[in-house]
Amino acid sequence: MNEIQDLQLRIDEAFSGIRFPSSPADLYDPISYTLGLGGKRLRPLLVLASCQMFGGEIDDAIHPAIGIELFHNFTLLHDDIMDAAPLRRGKETVYKKWNSNVAILAGDTMFALANKYMLRTRHQAVSPVVELFNQTAIEVCEGQQYDMDYEHRQDVTIADYMEMIRLKTAVLLAASLKTGAIIAGAGTADCNYIYDFGINIGLAFQLKDDLLDVYGVQEKFGKVSGGDIVAGKKTYLYLKALESAGPQSEDFRSLYASHAIGSNEKITKVKEIFDQLHIEQHTRKLIDEYYQKALHELSCISLSGEAMEALREYTAGLMEREN
Amino acid sequence: MNEIQDLQLRIDEAFSGIRFPSSPADLYDPISYTLGLGGKRLRPLLVLASCQMFGGEIDDAIHPAIGIELFHNFTLLHDDIMDAAPLRRGKETVYKKWNSNVAILAGDTMFALANKYMLRTRHQAVSPVVELFNQTAIEVCEGQQYDMDYEHRQDVTIADYMEMIRLKTAVLLAASLKTGAIIAGAGTADCNYIYDFGINIGLAFQLKDDLLDVYGVQEKFGKVSGGDIVAGKKTYLYLKALESAGPQSEDFRSLYASHAIGSNEKITKVKEIFDQLHIEQHTRKLIDEYYQKALHELSCISLSGEAMEALREYTAGLMEREN
Repeated sequence: MNEIQDLQLRIDEAFSGIRFPSSPADLYDPISYTLGLGGKRLRPLLVLASCQMFGGEIDDAIHPAIGIELFHNFTLLHDDIMDAAPLRRGKETVYKKWNSNVAILAGDTMFALANKYMLRTRHQAVSPVVELFNQTAIEVCEGQQYDMDYEHRQDVTIADYMEMIRLKTAVLLAASLKTGAIIAGAGTADCNYIYDFGINIGLAFQLKDDLLDVYGVQEKFGKVSGGDIVAGKKTYLYLKALESAGPQSEDFRSLYASHAIGSNEKITKVKEIFDQLHIEQHTRKLIDEYYQKALHELSCISLSGEAMEALREYTAGLMEREN
Repeated sequence: MNEIQDLQLRIDEAFSGIRFPSSPADLYDPISYTLGLGGKRLRPLLVLASCQMFGGEIDDAIHPAIGIELFHNFTLLHDDIMDAAPLRRGKETVYKKWNSNVAILAGDTMFALANKYMLRTRHQAVSPVVELFNQTAIEVCEGQQYDMDYEHRQDVTIADYMEMIRLKTAVLLAASLKTGAIIAGAGTADCNYIYDFGINIGLAFQLKDDLLDVYGVQEKFGKVSGGDIVAGKKTYLYLKALESAGPQSEDFRSLYASHAIGSNEKITKVKEIFDQLHIEQHTRKLIDEYYQKALHELSCISLSGEAMEALREYTAGLMEREN
């Protein structure tokens, strides 16, 4: 068994040991339900892997790792209300299964719980860890607000979009890695390099998500391919196509925004235009640029390549997925 | 000018100095709007008064004081969504002026901001202060959940109600006082006495609120007298009347729950029954019991009566209000 799998086991064990009070049931049942849906638990893994890489103790990092995952799940609970999303990980969302009041309050409770978990680390690390955590929380909220704003705006640029996904997605991955580094007692420069590695990996991951929604190998479970196109979501692919379409851009904008056309027909037509404009190639190139930037940040850290191999290999694996 | 007024000035100054980013506007404008509505700012005052009483530095307590008020305002933002409340302090609620998504996300951001403010104190106090803060936040959420549950339950007892208002209201006042004490470096016993003082004062305040809704001198602004009766809210007065009504309790329950009857007629009829059952006297007696308990807790603290006089006098003033 490799190091990363050991850490994954440790995280699963920690989550299965969490117990909540039985009352009030409408507060704690939705929290247990949400955590029971599982998920990849990528963020706590990044906390532990980073902590271990910098020579820290996993015991000092396991509770903050749980805290960050609790926070991530809290944001999903509230995002699902805002997006009126009926399903999450193939199951009914809390807002749909109970109601939006339950999802609001269970989410608030999870955020408070998350903060309590963040405190359970080395005394020296408490202030910087909790400060980073709440600053990141604010940035994630900003990202969600921009995401909602962009649904109604016609002037969203690629730069706007990259800043939105930096806030909504990348900063939490970066903060997870930096949290592990702080707990391990890494120096300021190394903490910043691992954070910037996380930002670039996070941007690359989100662009890959956008890409796979259109060009992914059909999955057995999960999202329907082309869901972003059907919903008219302003992804990188859409914005790049709009930028590249020249005189046809207004026709393309109308097509992409349309809900009058059938889903399959819309996907086919949009994909044809993406193909004409080489959007897949553009996107893969940009993903690779961010990935190379990430690797460069990693190479600046004052550790041997060997010490960083587990994290490098794990993130490389995530980059390679095609569904 | 007395000590308490000095502290109030200090708090008002601190709030008027807070600036938020201009973008995203739909995230930060509602936060500025909410803080601009003002309010008594009782909780930050309790933080500072307690800190000063135990010999601490106001500079160490001012940021946590702001953090607790930010938290309190965050709970109001989310409560107003859950209660579908159109007005707060005579102005439109955020959920009504913008929409519920804006109120959810602005609230989440305020909670994260509040945690950042809690960290800005003496290094030694950070862990216990932030731990108490988030534990209290969880309890406030539990209180709000019980409050919503009780709207639909017919078997709510006076003991249930007292536990609900302890969680929803009293723990935050108690935590405010204890936060000031921790920052001042007070001993564990004193921290617990001031906390229990806060719990009993908090229960007395909430019962007084319930009482004044029915028996208060008509205010110029704010709540309409009898609003709890019109809404059929299960207050202490209602539960005590139900307990005392004997064979008439089912008729009284129906009357109180009814929305078919005109507001003024309902208030008059319910008040008649309250008067027959001496509910005002029962309530005033219970308020005084909690107030006396609070004063007893205060007398256990290892400080001179003189040192505690400002806080005692200030809370006595709050107890005496009749509108």
